[in-house]
Amino acid sequence: MRMVDLIEKKRDGLALTKEEIDFIISGYTNGDIPDYQMSAFAMAIFFQDMTADERAYLTMAMAESGDQIDLSGIEGVKVDKHSTGGVGDKTTIALAPLVASVGVPVAKMSGRGLGHTGGTIDKLESIAGFNVEIPTERFLELVNKNKLAVVGQTANLTPADKKLYGLRDVTATVNSIPLIASSIMSKKIASGANAIVLDVKTGSGAFMKELEQSKELAEAMVEIGNNLGRQTMAVISDMNQPLGWAVGNALEVKEAIDMLRGEGPDDLRELCLTLGSHMVFLAKQATSVADARQKLEEAISSGKALDTLKTFISAQNGDPSVVDNPQLLPTAQFQIEVKAEENGHVASIVADRIGTAAMVLGAGRATKESDIDLSVGIVLKKKMGESVQAGETLAILHANKEDVQEVIDRVIKAYHISPDPVAKPTLIYEEIH
Amino acid sequence: MRMVDLIEKKRDGLALTKEEIDFIISGYTNGDIPDYQMSAFAMAIFFQDMTADERAYLTMAMAESGDQIDLSGIEGVKVDKHSTGGVGDKTTIALAPLVASVGVPVAKMSGRGLGHTGGTIDKLESIAGFNVEIPTERFLELVNKNKLAVVGQTANLTPADKKLYGLRDVTATVNSIPLIASSIMSKKIASGANAIVLDVKTGSGAFMKELEQSKELAEAMVEIGNNLGRQTMAVISDMNQPLGWAVGNALEVKEAIDMLRGEGPDDLRELCLTLGSHMVFLAKQATSVADARQKLEEAISSGKALDTLKTFISAQNGDPSVVDNPQLLPTAQFQIEVKAEENGHVASIVADRIGTAAMVLGAGRATKESDIDLSVGIVLKKKMGESVQAGETLAILHANKEDVQEVIDRVIKAYHISPDPVAKPTLIYEEIH
Repeated sequence: MRMVDLIEKKRDGLALTKEEIDFIISGYTNGDIPDYQMSAFAMAIFFQDMTADERAYLTMAMAESGDQIDLSGIEGVKVDKHSTGGVGDKTTIALAPLVASVGVPVAKMSGRGLGHTGGTIDKLESIAGFNVEIPTERFLELVNKNKLAVVGQTANLTPADKKLYGLRDVTATVNSIPLIASSIMSKKIASGANAIVLDVKTGSGAFMKELEQSKELAEAMVEIGNNLGRQTMAVISDMNQPLGWAVGNALEVKEAIDMLRGEGPDDLRELCLTLGSHMVFLAKQATSVADARQKLEEAISSGKALDTLKTFISAQNGDPSVVDNPQLLPTAQFQIEVKAEENGHVASIVADRIGTAAMVLGAGRATKESDIDLSVGIVLKKKMGESVQAGETLAILHANKEDVQEVIDRVIKAYHISPDPVAKPTLIYEEIH
Repeated sequence: MRMVDLIEKKRDGLALTKEEIDFIISGYTNGDIPDYQMSAFAMAIFFQDMTADERAYLTMAMAESGDQIDLSGIEGVKVDKHSTGGVGDKTTIALAPLVASVGVPVAKMSGRGLGHTGGTIDKLESIAGFNVEIPTERFLELVNKNKLAVVGQTANLTPADKKLYGLRDVTATVNSIPLIASSIMSKKIASGANAIVLDVKTGSGAFMKELEQSKELAEAMVEIGNNLGRQTMAVISDMNQPLGWAVGNALEVKEAIDMLRGEGPDDLRELCLTLGSHMVFLAKQATSVADARQKLEEAISSGKALDTLKTFISAQNGDPSVVDNPQLLPTAQFQIEVKAEENGHVASIVADRIGTAAMVLGAGRATKESDIDLSVGIVLKKKMGESVQAGETLAILHANKEDVQEVIDRVIKAYHISPDPVAKPTLIYEEIH
């Protein structure tokens, strides 16, 4: 088999076989196939797409390119959740203990990553003592015992995807549905889940700005998962404004705790209940999605979800008293109000701009080496559809420096104020099965 | 400027500016832009094509990437000829002295190259003593004096094209009209000609098998040449069988000499007169193409063309007596007849198969390091449209080994014999201005 012939085959719109895709991915991973052939291949895929079979083969080949986590030692149906990412997305921190509290085993592998704020791992490290570096055996033991544990991502998870993603990033081949879908799904498959719930974001703050694109991506991922024997469904949710109120690490942990206590913002609660009820149903811990939702609402009102969070934090050496006393989380030195400059109604809050503003405060990493300030961030006081008067507080900056004029400007620019009343945005657009 | 943005621009079907294309080609030549970005860019061009302006910018950027030959020291309009290549194509060796003999200055730079037989340079070296390594000053002096000189191609001609061609070869991006056209034209522009006549081959033995493709390539090259201020035209000629009778190095030189003497195969003579009359007309050495053709026919019948060939050979230290005594050229030890196995009419002679057969005899290079046997080759005795009886000679192998059964089999396989009469093929399909 010669790579040049396979590039030509794809270029001419023909479908590759499993053997051909395995040859490409293993050859690329071990260095036999050079970057310059792989980038031409990726560009050919951009134009010619891939069939459902090809997408499944590619996903599986990438999943098999490195370590694969064996979760068979955990009892029950292991359900994983994935979000395509957005600003203020603290869902995992609330959702994981919530579904665990009704009996769904959650064996979560998470990353740090670059971006506006840290990843789930960074956020959890806001809790004093919290440790994500636990050996595999102990990890499985904890899930069996408490239904929940979170570890840092192994370095050798889907190396083919890591290498290919780096290449796509510099060759204008990121924006291809089969490549995006197989990249995400390969990590989920390698992480060992039996069932997968996907949260595909749509809107100005999402990777996919248009609903149609988001649907296409969701459908592609659901199809790959189901074709590879993992029960998979997707929820398409709004990212035309940040999720919830808080953007920052400790601030988001606090908001997640609030939500589990039955407080916190409506959109975060609704998204967690929607995603969670599908997870519970797929894990066979409820007779229907509606039944699952009821169980989750009870777990919140009864305090069971909060208890699960405490047990989880203790088991990983964290200080569980933050759950009842969130003021124990890292706190920024200054709280600075951002005031509205005009009367009107919030028409949109460009999520990326809020994210960048949080990053300027120190909440996120620009490069792998950057340090994160876990205490800083932004708490929104007005969201889409709300009315606002000039001089009213739009948001509060939590900062460790006083000179934040640049951040204030960014937040004000992120808010679009309309003179006419604005409807509250849809939160859940669609479910894809 | 970032290469990734330019790849994306082309991927999305937008036209690049001159500055952007200059940035890409100079960056690629000096190594700032890596192969993996260039191959993705080439694949994007494959799918999105290039505008006439982009093609001209790309051609010029590649022409300017290395040495550019300055022919301004030569009087008159310098006309270059290029053939897209085929089997038995000894046109240059006959055509150059032919047009030079009526006053067209021919400053020819030629290569060796890989293939079924050697390049023009190899063929000329069949003549004892012939030297193509002459300093530039002497080269220009010879053209001014004799209207004709041939030198080996400088190592640093269009390095961008050389690098890009190598990359395209392994990334399935060879077959793209804008890339093929700009590759060929960049070399012609860098070689310093004022006017260019292109011989674009079409048919089973050509790079472009279909007439429509060949026309498209011819039109692309003519447009590039004219847009860059070089008067350019193209002739589309047949390559459904080898050109002429001889395939081999010394054998082709002999056939070219025969043609200048007024002998030799009709198709070679006709092609030389067609290409030549356009060269003479573009060089302003005739009032019309028909007038030019008449001048060339006279040069053949008067012996002036043969005299120009002799002067040219002498000036480059070759033995001019080969012109009157072609038996002084290298001769193979054995002449072996290939006999027809059936009665009928020659319907086609797959040129590539004849070429490969010649290569097996030693006439061509498989790798840069291979040695060429200048004396060996194949002389066809039957061409398309001719009738043949079983047992009649189809071709004669000129070999330096006796065991040539494999070559005989290849030649027999190349001939398609039809029971029904077959028309002689068209030689010149079209002229593109």
